[in-house]
Amino acid sequence: MKLKPLHDRVLVKRLESEEVTKGGIIIPDSAKEKPIKGEVIAVGPGKTSDKGEKIKMNVEKGNKVLFNKYAGTEIKVDGDEFLVMREDDILAIIE
Amino acid sequence: MKLKPLHDRVLVKRLESEEVTKGGIIIPDSAKEKPIKGEVIAVGPGKTSDKGEKIKMNVEKGNKVLFNKYAGTEIKVDGDEFLVMREDDILAIIE
Amino acid sequence: MKLKPLHDRVLVKRLESEEVTKGGIIIPDSAKEKPIKGEVIAVGPGKTSDKGEKIKMNVEKGNKVLFNKYAGTEIKVDGDEFLVMREDDILAIIE
Amino acid sequence: MKLKPLHDRVLVKRLESEEVTKGGIIIPDSAKEKPIKGEVIAVGPGKTSDKGEKIKMNVEKGNKVLFNKYAGTEIKVDGDEFLVMREDDILAIIE
Amino acid sequence: MKLKPLHDRVLVKRLESEEVTKGGIIIPDSAKEKPIKGEVIAVGPGKTSDKGEKIKMNVEKGNKVLFNKYAGTEIKVDGDEFLVMREDDILAIIE
Amino acid sequence: MKLKPLHDRVLVKRLESEEVTKGGIIIPDSAKEKPIKGEVIAVGPGKTSDKGEKIKMNVEKGNKVLFNKYAGTEIKVDGDEFLVMREDDILAIIE
Amino acid sequence: MKLKPLHDRVLVKRLESEEVTKGGIIIPDSAKEKPIKGEVIAVGPGKTSDKGEKIKMNVEKGNKVLFNKYAGTEIKVDGDEFLVMREDDILAIIE
Repeated sequence: MKLKPLHDRVLVKRLESEEVTKGGIIIPDSAKEKPIKGEVIAVGPGKTSDKGEKIKMNVEKGNKVLFNKYAGTEIKVDGDEFLVMREDDILAIIE
Repeated sequence: MKLKPLHDRVLVKRLESEEVTKGGIIIPDSAKEKPIKGEVIAVGPGKTSDKGEKIKMNVEKGNKVLFNKYAGTEIKVDGDEFLVMREDDILAIIE
Repeated sequence: MKLKPLHDRVLVKRLESEEVTKGGIIIPDSAKEKPIKGEVIAVGPGKTSDKGEKIKMNVEKGNKVLFNKYAGTEIKVDGDEFLVMREDDILAIIE
Repeated sequence: MKLKPLHDRVLVKRLESEEVTKGGIIIPDSAKEKPIKGEVIAVGPGKTSDKGEKIKMNVEKGNKVLFNKYAGTEIKVDGDEFLVMREDDILAIIE
Repeated sequence: MKLKPLHDRVLVKRLESEEVTKGGIIIPDSAKEKPIKGEVIAVGPGKTSDKGEKIKMNVEKGNKVLFNKYAGTEIKVDGDEFLVMREDDILAIIE
Repeated sequence: MKLKPLHDRVLVKRLESEEVTKGGIIIPDSAKEKPIKGEVIAVGPGKTSDKGEKIKMNVEKGNKVLFNKYAGTEIKVDGDEFLVMREDDILAIIE
Repeated sequence: MKLKPLHDRVLVKRLESEEVTKGGIIIPDSAKEKPIKGEVIAVGPGKTSDKGEKIKMNVEKGNKVLFNKYAGTEIKVDGDEFLVMREDDILAIIE
């Protein structure tokens, strides 16, 4: 199953936060801060302007991105969890 | 009876979520998460821009789509339940 | 008395919902769900764009329409009840 | 004293609702529903668009109109009560 | 001291409401309704449109105007009280 | 240290309100009404329109201005207190 | 790891506030007011206008800026703390 986001939406896969602290202690799951790093899996065609033209997106497939902790809607596809968010919820691209 | 949605609205039929878990146990109805997968049954002509032109829609009849759990208005037509929602409530097209 | 709606407003007459269930039992009035089906009686000239042009309406007199349960303002004309609503409150045309 | 409404505002005089029910009983004043019928007394020049042009009004002096019960601001001029409302608060013209 | 309002703002001086009722009784100050009649003392240059042009004002110095009771900000200049309000808070010009 | 406000922002220095009432009594600091008179110290380049052009500001350095009591954000620069506010929070220029 | 902000966002590093008062007393950490001075580390490409053009940013890398105390989202990159904020949250450039 493949997802094609609509408008200015972006499909993002969260990247796991590290499970081990510097001292090597494993943090139990509930104590971990939810990650806000992700990878762009699919990108929508862009918003349609009042003139009927698509406005070009600023992120592309494969980009590593930072986004707000509560951005987007969670979607489960074939057992995997994704987020669908608007491009504007993405704060920055990690290079 | 046939429905023709107005503006940028879309008529969607919810697709049933699976009633059996991987272990083969039947989940009682109240425990099931409401599905957010659907099929586009009819598509409006698009919003009218300030210049009087229709802005082209991004989904079409037959598309399988993902949408927000509480998106749209429920409509009962000839005993069948549908949802009328704005295209912007659709998150992604399933390919 | 004839009403000419202003702007993008539409005058709608509610169509009665059926008073008998499939088993032939008459439902008392308070138990009936308010109908959301109606007939368009009159249509406004359309919104005026920033350029002073009227934006064409998508519904016309005689259309059967579906609308949100709480859409519009109730108006009593010569003893008959109507609803005046914005075209955008109409979800779909019934064909 | 004459009033010239500004922008897209309209000066409206409420038309009295009938004081007698069909059975000929006089309804005490507090039980009467406030009328929503009125006559247009004066019309503003229209909103000014971003281009500095006036956008033509859709109602004119003498029109009988229907408006929302709580629309507009009450104004007392020489002992008479009027309402100043935006044209958009007028639902329909009575012909 | 002279005030030059900015943008689409208007400097208004409240006109006193009459202190005597028809029967000739003087109403104590606290019982009087606050006046909503005023005189335009100074007018701003108008809003600047997106194109950098000033949008012409509809009122001018000397106009008697009606405005909403709670419109504007009170300003005391050399002991006199004025109101600075947006032109859109003015309901009508009194002619 | 010099501050260059961004967009349509203005750097304003509050002008002291007079500390002595007409009868010559000194008012303790807590009883004084906060001044709303100020002097413009620096002016931003203006908002950028959708076309990428700067929209010219209406106030300039040295202008005495009146502004809303709670307008702007307080900033301390080298021990002095300033306010950074949007030009739209300025009500009028004092001439 | 390098961050490239999106749209009209700016990556800012807070500048430490001074830890010693004029009398030479060290202020404990909890009593210090959070600094609102920062240095611009990276700048987004600017918002995309309705015409698909980027609107030029007003700040650039290396600018010292003042911003609202609660502006932006905190981001931790390689142990360092940054803020990602919209350019409009920046009040002024310090020269």
